Amino acid sequence: MTKPFMFEKPVGMRDTLPELYSLKQQVRSTIATEVAKWGYAPIETPTLEFYDTIGTASATSDTQLFKLLDQQGNTLVLRPDMTAPIARIAASTLKGTERPARLTYDASVFRAQQREGGKPAEFEQVGVELIGDPTASADGEVIALMIAALKKAGLSNFKVAIGHIGFVNTLLTEILGNEERAGTFRRYLYEKNYVGFKRDVDQLPLSSIDRRRLHSLLSLRGGFGILNEAEALIETEEGRKSLADLYKLVDVLKAYDLEDSVIIDLNLVMHMSYYTGMVFEAYSDELGFPLGGGGRYDELLSKFHRPEAATGFAVRLDLLTEALGKSKEDVTISNAIIYSNERRKEAMKTADTLRNEGQSVVMQDVMGIRDLDAYSKQFDDVHYLIGKNGTNGGGGVDRNE
Amino acid sequence: MTKPFMFEKPVGMRDTLPELYSLKQQVRSTIATEVAKWGYAPIETPTLEFYDTIGTASATSDTQLFKLLDQQGNTLVLRPDMTAPIARIAASTLKGTERPARLTYDASVFRAQQREGGKPAEFEQVGVELIGDPTASADGEVIALMIAALKKAGLSNFKVAIGHIGFVNTLLTEILGNEERAGTFRRYLYEKNYVGFKRDVDQLPLSSIDRRRLHSLLSLRGGFGILNEAEALIETEEGRKSLADLYKLVDVLKAYDLEDSVIIDLNLVMHMSYYTGMVFEAYSDELGFPLGGGGRYDELLSKFHRPEAATGFAVRLDLLTEALGKSKEDVTISNAIIYSNERRKEAMKTADTLRNEGQSVVMQDVMGIRDLDAYSKQFDDVHYLIGKNGTNGGGGVDRNE
Repeated sequence: MTKPFMFEKPVGMRDTLPELYSLKQQVRSTIATEVAKWGYAPIETPTLEFYDTIGTASATSDTQLFKLLDQQGNTLVLRPDMTAPIARIAASTLKGTERPARLTYDASVFRAQQREGGKPAEFEQVGVELIGDPTASADGEVIALMIAALKKAGLSNFKVAIGHIGFVNTLLTEILGNEERAGTFRRYLYEKNYVGFKRDVDQLPLSSIDRRRLHSLLSLRGGFGILNEAEALIETEEGRKSLADLYKLVDVLKAYDLEDSVIIDLNLVMHMSYYTGMVFEAYSDELGFPLGGGGRYDELLSKFHRPEAATGFAVRLDLLTEALGKSKEDVTISNAIIYSNERRKEAMKTADTLRNEGQSVVMQDVMGIRDLDAYSKQFDDVHYLIGKNGTNGGGGVDRNE
Repeated sequence: MTKPFMFEKPVGMRDTLPELYSLKQQVRSTIATEVAKWGYAPIETPTLEFYDTIGTASATSDTQLFKLLDQQGNTLVLRPDMTAPIARIAASTLKGTERPARLTYDASVFRAQQREGGKPAEFEQVGVELIGDPTASADGEVIALMIAALKKAGLSNFKVAIGHIGFVNTLLTEILGNEERAGTFRRYLYEKNYVGFKRDVDQLPLSSIDRRRLHSLLSLRGGFGILNEAEALIETEEGRKSLADLYKLVDVLKAYDLEDSVIIDLNLVMHMSYYTGMVFEAYSDELGFPLGGGGRYDELLSKFHRPEAATGFAVRLDLLTEALGKSKEDVTISNAIIYSNERRKEAMKTADTLRNEGQSVVMQDVMGIRDLDAYSKQFDDVHYLIGKNGTNGGGGVDRNE
């Protein structure tokens, strides 16, 4: 370990400069407005939580948690997601509020990266949690709201893939016989490592029927008709219940006219292990990674001693901003008033007037500028108020190209 | 150390619930708008930085830093302020941009608390940094902008106290003879422990003149006329230069018509040790703590190998929100549509229409509600779309009181 250079940042840590910030802020506020219109109330939680509460509930792997000791000797974590902290609040401070409860957040979450590889270790998520509603209407609402928010933010060319973790689990466990093997295959699906999945299927001592069923699982991706194909693969009660959930969800999504925006993907396995029912992810044509997703997590609240149904989504603000590309909006400050001491008061009045009209105006003492030409070139309009009024060519406006 | 309860949060960590969040968001966006009008460009920096860079540059005491090890064995810190990270960027990524540079931020900063005592360990700061301008105009601008932002946010009944760290330092060192003793007295001033200050003055072997000078320092608080009184106390070149800085600054503030908003306080000593020139703090009548402050820090950039003049302010968003009190704005969601499956489509259309008009509308499947009466009471208007159209009293609007 060598001492870091003065300008370095830890692995996976990033700065956001003004141009990108402006686009991010636009996206952020557009989503917040849409989510508010659907009746979700915003909350904030602390960056640091106890490892024993949020760290374990969030189900992020230990190697991905940023951990530290507080001065009382407790292990703390930087929150790896917002769903677990909101579950904590729902089960404590907000346990007496009416259900279903609709909550929203916009916050940084943290996942430690082993090495520098372009993956951020801190990223901003905007999301919602709908707590206390077990219906397919609730699941449909969070999917429809995510789609509406992404569209309002300006994203086109994206699809939401919908799966069901109960379906995957029951099929894998039924065929593979034990949870450990099922876990291996679930990991292949999570990593979208279909080559590894198929290789292991062919190497295991399985009946040819079961082998075919596992291969067939990989093809369960497409329109709503996929659900009929899936029925043939399933023999357990839990499998049938999972498909029944999805049939109901599809009805809700049809009512929202979302046939063109969603597909069924029964291979879908999510990063977070707290999901219990339907799960979903949004993919944009421009990006290799899902830029948002979510699902039903009916067991998480019971970790906080208050079992409740819950469903929600989270959108990765950094990836969404990237997918939307550079802002069209010009972030250059358009006005500057460069003044000398004698005309300070006049400069202030001019600035006041322009700002009251809603314009951005830099007021700059000429004595604070090293290179007047270079400095002035940044702006569209520069007002020079220099020297005694009217005697020094002052008061003019120089319009740069 | 005992295992924390499931609902507990680490010392100094807080949740922000919807009502407070809404007020905070209002304040946040009002300040951001004002700061943008003055031509400041927003940036973001990561929560985690290297201890060896930001941790040491920020000058926060080691016991107040949240520290952790990354997977490469480097010590990281949760940023204790935003000034040092922005200095890092100004001296690296933005070193080629024109000067003076105007930057702004809105971010959480972290200061570890020894024990639970109501002091937050994480709080949000909104601030600006004006980099590369050594003039009193720059100092006046950041003070005037802070005052304008606080007023726009709705704060009245506040004053900004202005001091000069160079003045305090030179007077203490000249009289007390060494830096260690000066440090003790500076600490008293920082803690506003005037009793301790006076006791130590009387116990030290000082000439009666010097004793009187130290006592006089404590009374250097009031209108601009205080500067004339201060001249009598000062014998060093640095002291005279400090007062000259303040005379120039007062001229700028008079041009901004801020005589009623500011006072001179030559006892003012700030938390951060990187300040080199004028310093200031804002006090509201409602609060015991300063809710914002700042100053000139002409040495900090040289820690990043690029000496530059700089000045700025930071406002504590949590304290400002507290000083402003509860939001007048009603955060209750005013509309809800409670529907049954048969009328889902009709419910969606109604919700769509209202949302397009800018209203917030909760859409709720009646099957997801446990207590319909209690649930409905939260809203001003509830539209029931239940049962087959027109056969079940559906479609009506129930206006609660």
